[in-house]
Amino acid sequence: MTGQPAFSADFQAELGRLFRLRRDVRRFRSDPVAEPLIDEVLGEAGFAPSVGLSEPWRYVRVATAARRAAIRENFERCNAEALKGYRGEDARTYASLKLAGLDIAPVQFAVFCDAGDGKGKGLGTRSMPEMRDYSVVCSVMVLWLAARARGLGLRWVSILDPETVGQALEVPDDWRLVAYLCLGWPEEEGAVPELEQAGWEVRDGVADRLL
Amino acid sequence: MTGQPAFSADFQAELGRLFRLRRDVRRFRSDPVAEPLIDEVLGEAGFAPSVGLSEPWRYVRVATAARRAAIRENFERCNAEALKGYRGEDARTYASLKLAGLDIAPVQFAVFCDAGDGKGKGLGTRSMPEMRDYSVVCSVMVLWLAARARGLGLRWVSILDPETVGQALEVPDDWRLVAYLCLGWPEEEGAVPELEQAGWEVRDGVADRLL
Repeated sequence: MTGQPAFSADFQAELGRLFRLRRDVRRFRSDPVAEPLIDEVLGEAGFAPSVGLSEPWRYVRVATAARRAAIRENFERCNAEALKGYRGEDARTYASLKLAGLDIAPVQFAVFCDAGDGKGKGLGTRSMPEMRDYSVVCSVMVLWLAARARGLGLRWVSILDPETVGQALEVPDDWRLVAYLCLGWPEEEGAVPELEQAGWEVRDGVADRLL
Repeated sequence: MTGQPAFSADFQAELGRLFRLRRDVRRFRSDPVAEPLIDEVLGEAGFAPSVGLSEPWRYVRVATAARRAAIRENFERCNAEALKGYRGEDARTYASLKLAGLDIAPVQFAVFCDAGDGKGKGLGTRSMPEMRDYSVVCSVMVLWLAARARGLGLRWVSILDPETVGQALEVPDDWRLVAYLCLGWPEEEGAVPELEQAGWEVRDGVADRLL
């Protein structure tokens, strides 16, 4: 030990409450998020682990009307394609789900993995190159928790064609889209996932998936 | 709002301290971790987000001497291969790094993504099937923070051939290795990444990677 005090039982319990209230938020209020607060949660995301300290994350702010329209059009097309894959009750439920907050979320980021950057000197990626993408996921997860602890809600949109997003945002060819994030003040907060409320799936946890 | 109290400024600060002290731990004490504590951190991991509530994570405990030997042999082979890719100072530094805690960590898990399970009904994965793997990464990140908040250290080993790990642990063919985790009581705690201490890389954060 280097003298840092341990984390208290109260903190551990509150951390558990944060995990349980994290939520994927699809319904945002339209009021803006103060820029210093956005900087603060991005700053926390930089303390995420990354393979070989490669820090391959690239956060691209999506703010102009033209770029937002391109993302929404991308989503609408992918969502229509996805709907075709369901039948009967599943199709009805799917069509009723609110799957994005793209129309209203005041802050939006496309998060990429830079496959071409040499930082980290390849350590830990030779047999598992996907570790770079996983490092970006870790930063998103840290950002998500930091945001939620400050009352902000986050939505991770994956119903997008990654290549088309990269083209619309004019990022280098070797940047891979890992996540598209909507950030803002949530309309409501709750402990039950929206997909569970809507009857799509239920949460099981890890116990059933432990060998 | 549904009446849950917000998270306090004190909690936000303590959460920031947790992010900063998280660390990838390579040096463990050999004393065991109580099973109820292991169950507790696994339970927290189950509150991670997953695409479509698919919960594709599969945690396989690696405990027998034979399985541990297979993992260590896999690591040694991949590590020797990786070392061949470095020259000069990098090669010397790489060879001096302690890259795993496989020899001593009392608790070890191979974490897989089950690509064949239908839970979640494919929601959110049509255009980005890698979202299932990313969901598993999210559960590892939550487990990591839950463990660290309880004083435990975690090491994510990626210098492994994923297919050979799956074969050694006799998991189904459509399970992909996402992470190999060593868990235990750390020898020491600190805020500076071991790779930074060893002169391999330095941390920059997100600010330089924001567009």
